[in-house]
Amino acid sequence: MVTDALTGAFAPVVTPFKPDGSADVERYLAHCRWLLDQGAGLAPFGTNSEANSIPPAERMALLDALLEAGLPAARLLPGTGACSAQETAALTRHAVQGGCAGALMLPPFFYKGITDEGLYAYYAEVIERVADARLRLYLYHIPALSGVPIAHAVIEHLLRDFPGIVVGIKDSSGDWDNLAVMLQRFPQLAVFPASESLLSRSRPLGARGCISATVNINPGAIAHLVQAWDQPEGPALQAQVDRIRQVVQARPMIAALKEVLAQGLHDPAWRRVRPPLTPLSVEAAAALVQELSAAGFRLHPVLA
Amino acid sequence: MVTDALTGAFAPVVTPFKPDGSADVERYLAHCRWLLDQGAGLAPFGTNSEANSIPPAERMALLDALLEAGLPAARLLPGTGACSAQETAALTRHAVQGGCAGALMLPPFFYKGITDEGLYAYYAEVIERVADARLRLYLYHIPALSGVPIAHAVIEHLLRDFPGIVVGIKDSSGDWDNLAVMLQRFPQLAVFPASESLLSRSRPLGARGCISATVNINPGAIAHLVQAWDQPEGPALQAQVDRIRQVVQARPMIAALKEVLAQGLHDPAWRRVRPPLTPLSVEAAAALVQELSAAGFRLHPVLA
Repeated sequence: MVTDALTGAFAPVVTPFKPDGSADVERYLAHCRWLLDQGAGLAPFGTNSEANSIPPAERMALLDALLEAGLPAARLLPGTGACSAQETAALTRHAVQGGCAGALMLPPFFYKGITDEGLYAYYAEVIERVADARLRLYLYHIPALSGVPIAHAVIEHLLRDFPGIVVGIKDSSGDWDNLAVMLQRFPQLAVFPASESLLSRSRPLGARGCISATVNINPGAIAHLVQAWDQPEGPALQAQVDRIRQVVQARPMIAALKEVLAQGLHDPAWRRVRPPLTPLSVEAAAALVQELSAAGFRLHPVLA
Repeated sequence: MVTDALTGAFAPVVTPFKPDGSADVERYLAHCRWLLDQGAGLAPFGTNSEANSIPPAERMALLDALLEAGLPAARLLPGTGACSAQETAALTRHAVQGGCAGALMLPPFFYKGITDEGLYAYYAEVIERVADARLRLYLYHIPALSGVPIAHAVIEHLLRDFPGIVVGIKDSSGDWDNLAVMLQRFPQLAVFPASESLLSRSRPLGARGCISATVNINPGAIAHLVQAWDQPEGPALQAQVDRIRQVVQARPMIAALKEVLAQGLHDPAWRRVRPPLTPLSVEAAAALVQELSAAGFRLHPVLA
């Protein structure tokens, strides 16, 4: 059983940018503090953080800013995956040395048709380069964007060779069978689906929570559902977070999350994204807000 | 018409590694010199160079080594694409300042479902960050690996806004129609298919040559075909390079190229690849050599 792994609702923290495109540390800290106050954990530099549009040095500086501001490293699960083992190891070492609870690691995502042996060798090389027993590695299975699925044979091989180091996985496949099989086959692995919509089904099988884009805008309800899925209020809470999720995920996710923050905080600066992403159009933004409202999402009280 | 763009057969130069995994500069220089002697140009840090497994700083050091060794910058078309505009601009600026003839630039390849507007904005940002009128940018269309196709509308927009800067494209789609339409629609663009097998069909339509993995092992014949496709020996030469290409491309390309170099040079060190890639098995290597031999490829004289 998992003894040394995270639990809860984690936000792949969206990253605000200044007019010149650089990261906006002040808004970033404010958003992170609000998420923590609402009971969420932080997974900075995830897919929805635009992490792959942020060079390693800039990611490290942002993580340093969080730590220097006194945010709890025990609730930090930064994304540290890059295309090369060298860059991934550097980002991961930095996270470990900062005391972070874990590192969420993409597979190398340019080359395709990777063998199980090659993917295992990549993760093994990163672990050896980090060379720190404090490392807690969470694999990141997101085949639609990485193009490199993490096969169960690779997970098994890593768990065998690096017990206590490889401790978890985020499953963004959206494939229920994959999630259920992992929960059954790897009881020592902390499994996080990428959507709160799977919480009531996966928590009874042992899922530890979720790492979900929409935690950025709906942290309180989702964090509560992680705990209360089997309580009387569970089904209604699940239905409510599902309605909100469905509205947001019908849009380009990152732009939609930033639009909600821009409107909820009366702060248009939140709309900025880095190319190649683009913000929502005015029309799309209006439709999003209207549908969220119809789904029972109250923009201002939630974010105030 | 193109007035300031490259022509010929270019090798996405395979990168040799030492036992500790670092780049082997000595073997790299020797391979590059041999390619140039055979009449090929150099496209270091392409897909087949394992460029996406090589951090930016290491790529820059390798390019510096080529330039310091006196290799002709006018025959150098390094790959400079990374996921972020910042890293891509840094690599590109370095190549431009080194006097390279051009920079071959992947689109940002993590996020998918990118709009034409977003992809245009990305390339425009990189060009503005490089801020050097000497830049000659070659787009790199390789949807099977990048997951981000470069639409003709994006090319048109870039050509309109950055004439003389955006000058070419490598088309690795393998889609003849895409190649033919670009050659017809963008006469000012230097178009390079990614395979020598398309030379006799595309040269009469204006293709400038090819940037092809197999130039690494068959540079003389391919460079000759770029010039001689319409000469009496053209058809036989095309058929001969096609036979060799077909044998190699039926394998994992990078491992196969390195196996041929290892055997041709009696130098097993060439077999090394960086994870997540893996070398060919002994059996696969034997079958490759046998089929190459049956296709008329003479390993030792060619590479000697």
